[in-house]
Amino acid sequence: MPIIRIEMFEGRTVEQKRACAEAVTKAWCDTCGGTPAMVTLVFADVAKQDWATAGRLASDPKV
Amino acid sequence: MPIIRIEMFEGRTVEQKRACAEAVTKAWCDTCGGTPAMVTLVFADVAKQDWATAGRLASDPKV
Amino acid sequence: MPIIRIEMFEGRTVEQKRACAEAVTKAWCDTCGGTPAMVTLVFADVAKQDWATAGRLASDPKV
Amino acid sequence: MPIIRIEMFEGRTVEQKRACAEAVTKAWCDTCGGTPAMVTLVFADVAKQDWATAGRLASDPKV
Amino acid sequence: MPIIRIEMFEGRTVEQKRACAEAVTKAWCDTCGGTPAMVTLVFADVAKQDWATAGRLASDPKV
Amino acid sequence: MPIIRIEMFEGRTVEQKRACAEAVTKAWCDTCGGTPAMVTLVFADVAKQDWATAGRLASDPKV
Repeated sequence: MPIIRIEMFEGRTVEQKRACAEAVTKAWCDTCGGTPAMVTLVFADVAKQDWATAGRLASDPKV
Repeated sequence: MPIIRIEMFEGRTVEQKRACAEAVTKAWCDTCGGTPAMVTLVFADVAKQDWATAGRLASDPKV
Repeated sequence: MPIIRIEMFEGRTVEQKRACAEAVTKAWCDTCGGTPAMVTLVFADVAKQDWATAGRLASDPKV
Repeated sequence: MPIIRIEMFEGRTVEQKRACAEAVTKAWCDTCGGTPAMVTLVFADVAKQDWATAGRLASDPKV
Repeated sequence: MPIIRIEMFEGRTVEQKRACAEAVTKAWCDTCGGTPAMVTLVFADVAKQDWATAGRLASDPKV
Repeated sequence: MPIIRIEMFEGRTVEQKRACAEAVTKAWCDTCGGTPAMVTLVFADVAKQDWATAGRLASDPKV
């Protein structure tokens, strides 16, 4: 506890994920009260063609 | 708001996802009251060997 | 297959959810090819104080 | 993009969630490159009797 | 690792969840190779009016 | 009903998933009361570089 899940466009590097996991874990601990060892974090990369806003795939050109 | 997540067997084409994202977004707006710009939709493709019903993988032959 | 999950602000009525479940199920079948019996759909109501955009809770007044 | 989901034991206050949403959003932006407006964050409170580690409910006394 | 999430109709008792958490954790360890301490399991109760199959809410009478 | 989702490190074989799906489905039925046909189970493989504990990616060497 907690479990933090981050879904984002694919393309972030391992270095970015490493820094993100550390920073987000710290942010949770600082504000919710807890230790880093409590925090499980999972990244899920999503292709742009699998993400839609306003009914339009993120891989499609904007109108 | 809302976030709609659709998990389905892999194999649908981008054209199907494009049409689906548009139609599902419209269906939500028509029934729940809102505008398309509010809707985020994410597809997650699942391999048949990662999906089980009744304790049996979907990739296995039926008995 | 598929599983469709809809997270939205609490407050929609059962009538809206009933209409939404029917319309979204139809939208998926029409575009992805399948029958309604294949579709499982789950709603998750989220309180505004549990939803944040741009780092701000949806229950907080806009600046 | 991104969607961040935080599941944790119920009991955090709105003040903690407000601070957490702001800090986690900033942590993601700082490390993954993006603006706060891109970030959607959802909290899900979980009762201790709905959370188990090592096959034991968190609401049960430790042995 | 792993995280197991079980969504089901509300109504199961704490005793059932306790037994389920223990049995499912054991089942995972026995088949995937691991120790109970590795397993995090979360239950999510869903109201019948928030669950639909074939476009029909589970709270509605069958036709 | 229910939907069971298992997120774990990639690397388990199809044979392990097959045995796991069967055993977990049985464990749920035995403890929560239901038949296997009610149970949908989805596996999600997660790369070690997408999983963090205590702010540290599982793919990184331990200190």
